[in-house]
Amino acid sequence: MDDARVIGVDGGGTRTRVVVVSAERGVLGSGEAGSGNARDIGIEAVARHVAAARDAAYAAAGLSRGVANAAFCGMAGAGADEIRGPLTRALSAGGIASVLEVGTDLDAALAGCLCGRPGIVLIAGTGSSCLGRDATGRTARAGGLGSYLDDGGGATDLGRGALIACVRAHDGRGPETLLTPTVHAHLNTTSPDELARRIGDTLPRAEVAALAPLVTAAAGQGDEVAQCILADGANELAACVAAVANRLGLTEPEVALTGGLGNAPEYRPVIVDAIGRRLPHATTRMPELPAVLGSALRAFALLGIEPPARERLVGLGS
Amino acid sequence: MDDARVIGVDGGGTRTRVVVVSAERGVLGSGEAGSGNARDIGIEAVARHVAAARDAAYAAAGLSRGVANAAFCGMAGAGADEIRGPLTRALSAGGIASVLEVGTDLDAALAGCLCGRPGIVLIAGTGSSCLGRDATGRTARAGGLGSYLDDGGGATDLGRGALIACVRAHDGRGPETLLTPTVHAHLNTTSPDELARRIGDTLPRAEVAALAPLVTAAAGQGDEVAQCILADGANELAACVAAVANRLGLTEPEVALTGGLGNAPEYRPVIVDAIGRRLPHATTRMPELPAVLGSALRAFALLGIEPPARERLVGLGS
Repeated sequence: MDDARVIGVDGGGTRTRVVVVSAERGVLGSGEAGSGNARDIGIEAVARHVAAARDAAYAAAGLSRGVANAAFCGMAGAGADEIRGPLTRALSAGGIASVLEVGTDLDAALAGCLCGRPGIVLIAGTGSSCLGRDATGRTARAGGLGSYLDDGGGATDLGRGALIACVRAHDGRGPETLLTPTVHAHLNTTSPDELARRIGDTLPRAEVAALAPLVTAAAGQGDEVAQCILADGANELAACVAAVANRLGLTEPEVALTGGLGNAPEYRPVIVDAIGRRLPHATTRMPELPAVLGSALRAFALLGIEPPARERLVGLGS
Repeated sequence: MDDARVIGVDGGGTRTRVVVVSAERGVLGSGEAGSGNARDIGIEAVARHVAAARDAAYAAAGLSRGVANAAFCGMAGAGADEIRGPLTRALSAGGIASVLEVGTDLDAALAGCLCGRPGIVLIAGTGSSCLGRDATGRTARAGGLGSYLDDGGGATDLGRGALIACVRAHDGRGPETLLTPTVHAHLNTTSPDELARRIGDTLPRAEVAALAPLVTAAAGQGDEVAQCILADGANELAACVAAVANRLGLTEPEVALTGGLGNAPEYRPVIVDAIGRRLPHATTRMPELPAVLGSALRAFALLGIEPPARERLVGLGS
């Protein structure tokens, strides 16, 4: 195949990114559009965003729009069959590429983080989730089922931990903590009863997640309650990694730790330690490439050809 | 005072109960009306329900409506000053009694459970809460701030534990459990992804609480995961009791354990054990009188006179 050209798509809740990559010349161009989560905005709208981002990528490359040899679309929400099937048909109808596969944003992140090598990606952001892939392409997932059932160690979990710590400190079930004044100041409350009235049965996820930086800050100031919240969260994250590694039989996996919270300087070493206790032969590392380039690597793999050298892929930014 | 007559009121989310009690003759009559929770239905509506239940109690006693010597109203939601003040004024305006005090449903439960003696009441129902009172009348509370912040060991907490156990068993983070088939059958789901879609950010509290009997049943069948959920819940409840006892300096308290879940045969002994580990000199017992009679005892205490003998109070039912 002469200079195969592929498309990588990373569709998240906020934006859809597309890259056009040549096997010989590396990244030719990239473009962006709105949300790529079909569960939030519907399949037709996602297909329009992918097309718009693809057009922008071709324009940035100074190329007329063509049909690429292959495309991999890593889309939020596409883990569910009832989304992936219709979304695959809608994107195929758009004539993006001769060979097309739709996977999840987690597939794209894994491929990017480890440059296509087998291993595990652990994402600690507002929520948390973990995906592994072995050398044969077999995958296993843990976590990521939302803040009510899951997402231990993510920002909503740490934020809820901060709220609970305030309540427990107040009535004597738990120790005093620096979180009490900072949480009350953040939420403009003065007592647990006010907190309870403010919150009711639940609080918007983003509001709870916004408390996570108070936890990392208090932990950084030596607050033991906050340090316990981080340790509990890290153990939950490590449990996801261990479950995925066990199911795939990965005894010495590379583990890429990513997501806004996974990079917090007070938290990252706690997570790395927790993973090391459960999987002593794992190597935890920073992500190497952004998810959209992970999708491009998956697209080259669909064609069975080597991707460009890593030097031709870096520099796109996260 | 010749044969003092008092009124006891127990206002919960479902119904308001009133008793008319004579110091010499015991319970003269009782009546019921709708919700007594001013947070749910407003202060005027609660005042109407109290008046209607009071009229029914007088009618049942074969008496014309009078002004009692004292009334204690234990009302759900009245822990908050912005409810208790206006509610006290509204009930006073109704001319119920010469001396009137408004407290919470937990105050009434404590007084009833221990026949007015100092001690601690622990309620494990849909939520959970704990209130203690020492011999001087000083009180301390723990828990009861709703299922998002608190309510550990209550039915919503156990139900959420069951959901989380299913998810963890599925992806390998946790052991297999009998809860997986029973929870899926109950919710008409077949996988954790379906559970997550069904639940979203939260599930109505009653739906989660309805899963608690699955936990006690599985524990009764020897399921270790379910037994752990009960043990964790019991520890949370015992932490509330210990915090209250410590704050009041009660080293050998009587602890009345009540609420629908607190009486489950698979759960109650686990809770009693957990309390015993934290407070070796505590005595955990069944409640002696219903909350509405606890309110009547509080009303006699307001007058500074002895209530009728316990034989004249029992038999009203819970």
